[in-house]
Amino acid sequence: MKKTLLIALGGNALIRKGQAGSVAEQFENLKMPVRQIARLSERYKIIITHGNGPQVGNLLLQQECCDAVPKLPLEILVAQTQGQIGYMIESTLDSTFMELGINGEKYFISLITYVVVDENDPAFKTPLKPIGPVYTEEQAKTVPYPTRKTVKGYRRVVVSPDPVTVVEKREIRRLIDMDFIVICCGGGGIPVIREGRGFHGVDAVIDKDLVSAKLAEEVAADIFIIATDVPGAVLNYGKPGEKILRSATPDQAAGYLKEGHFPPGTMKPKVEAAMRFVRTCGKRAVISSIGDIEKAVEGERGTEIMCKG
Amino acid sequence: MKKTLLIALGGNALIRKGQAGSVAEQFENLKMPVRQIARLSERYKIIITHGNGPQVGNLLLQQECCDAVPKLPLEILVAQTQGQIGYMIESTLDSTFMELGINGEKYFISLITYVVVDENDPAFKTPLKPIGPVYTEEQAKTVPYPTRKTVKGYRRVVVSPDPVTVVEKREIRRLIDMDFIVICCGGGGIPVIREGRGFHGVDAVIDKDLVSAKLAEEVAADIFIIATDVPGAVLNYGKPGEKILRSATPDQAAGYLKEGHFPPGTMKPKVEAAMRFVRTCGKRAVISSIGDIEKAVEGERGTEIMCKG
Repeated sequence: MKKTLLIALGGNALIRKGQAGSVAEQFENLKMPVRQIARLSERYKIIITHGNGPQVGNLLLQQECCDAVPKLPLEILVAQTQGQIGYMIESTLDSTFMELGINGEKYFISLITYVVVDENDPAFKTPLKPIGPVYTEEQAKTVPYPTRKTVKGYRRVVVSPDPVTVVEKREIRRLIDMDFIVICCGGGGIPVIREGRGFHGVDAVIDKDLVSAKLAEEVAADIFIIATDVPGAVLNYGKPGEKILRSATPDQAAGYLKEGHFPPGTMKPKVEAAMRFVRTCGKRAVISSIGDIEKAVEGERGTEIMCKG
Repeated sequence: MKKTLLIALGGNALIRKGQAGSVAEQFENLKMPVRQIARLSERYKIIITHGNGPQVGNLLLQQECCDAVPKLPLEILVAQTQGQIGYMIESTLDSTFMELGINGEKYFISLITYVVVDENDPAFKTPLKPIGPVYTEEQAKTVPYPTRKTVKGYRRVVVSPDPVTVVEKREIRRLIDMDFIVICCGGGGIPVIREGRGFHGVDAVIDKDLVSAKLAEEVAADIFIIATDVPGAVLNYGKPGEKILRSATPDQAAGYLKEGHFPPGTMKPKVEAAMRFVRTCGKRAVISSIGDIEKAVEGERGTEIMCKG
């Protein structure tokens, strides 16, 4: 019986630092993580999740340039990026399996995924997550939504509530039972709130690592890999005594979090996501570089969070 | 053993004539076809396909307004609309099942789908299919792709090759075997051509009814419904003796096609798609109004194409 591996791909799987992010660049960049995942699929059931920051930012910017077409709410833009990035990952996987000569044996699909959030989540009170284009102070006063000054300039901020449940979890469970490779939860999932006998989308962005942790829990994954642009979580980041954290229990990680070792918005939500998964199920999470996914699975690289550290 | 029903939803499932096509309108419009499909799912295995004309047109127009972000090729825009429309259909289905009180029993997903076309298809020589915004004659001279004068004005034209095969057909077959409702092949599918041990996308648009016919054949569907904005195919359209065609064999339909009864670009590809499906498998296709999907399944409405007319 194969174990289940959930791999959350960071933004650098698609766009590397300093790149404009053309489609050709994104396809090229994907080859490196996807080759590792293709090899891992021989020994593990695989779920792939991914971010969408630059892609949804571009769609927001395009919308603002153009008054000729109806503006779409953020939920729809997230759905669009799930289509775009899901296609790019899936077709790269397809080409990789063809190169490896194991194409006909694999089943794999990209799913549209929406994720329930709680309208009473305190996060709804304070939009904190910056998204989309950068404005001058004057422009920021005229745009029809809250903005905040960031290091880059003024940006739109949206709420970032906690994921409550992945709507398609039952489907995803059945798919991995049949050894389908599933690409899902793009951009943290399309955020929806329950309303009577239905859902409706909300202008929010769910953290993709937190939603990946939730899905890993809901499908009972065995290993949760958070693949990013650094080798792991670092203690004393930017200070004397800086060193990579190789292993910690959830409680130790919580202590480091409280001491402020991990920068909010980058490493903090990753450590939080890894801790949450390990606390619910007692299994293993690893934060590693995108080039080290296979080694992270083997326990040879990255920051491991597990109960017996 | 449930029979398999493939339903191709026309553009009017999402945007009705005279509407600007806000997201609220699209969600509202979807309720009517989706309620019928939800009821039909009690007796049939279901595959839903859909168009993307206005949605991909809006994305093209936005791209042109905005020089600040990298331009995306048409294949990626089609992928984006699959995310957008897949989400809207799936979440409407979700709400509908909740209303009907049968939510927990159903499995349903929206898939990203790409479709192989043949680079030697003669269609690649002559771009004929108009897409996206309308230009003046002067503007048309400056845009970086072929344009053609249409009744609305000058528009970009792209090639529209025949679908050769739906890449995800094996996955879709397994999903319907397990009674999953599958939403797929949006906008005719993302067009790709084989190149060595891989695929690459092409700037083309595949007719959504023709790709639906191909998928219906490849998954051995039993009934193929093409749901559109008119009650069926009409003989002597706009002439004396105009009447709806209730039933025809593929050979009879081919004869009417040859005599020019069906306008190209609207009813012609639908009749062609229905004929192709029935010729490959001997089963039944119906072209009907979007309000008559259930009656079309029962043989009470629409234009039926079947071997014994």
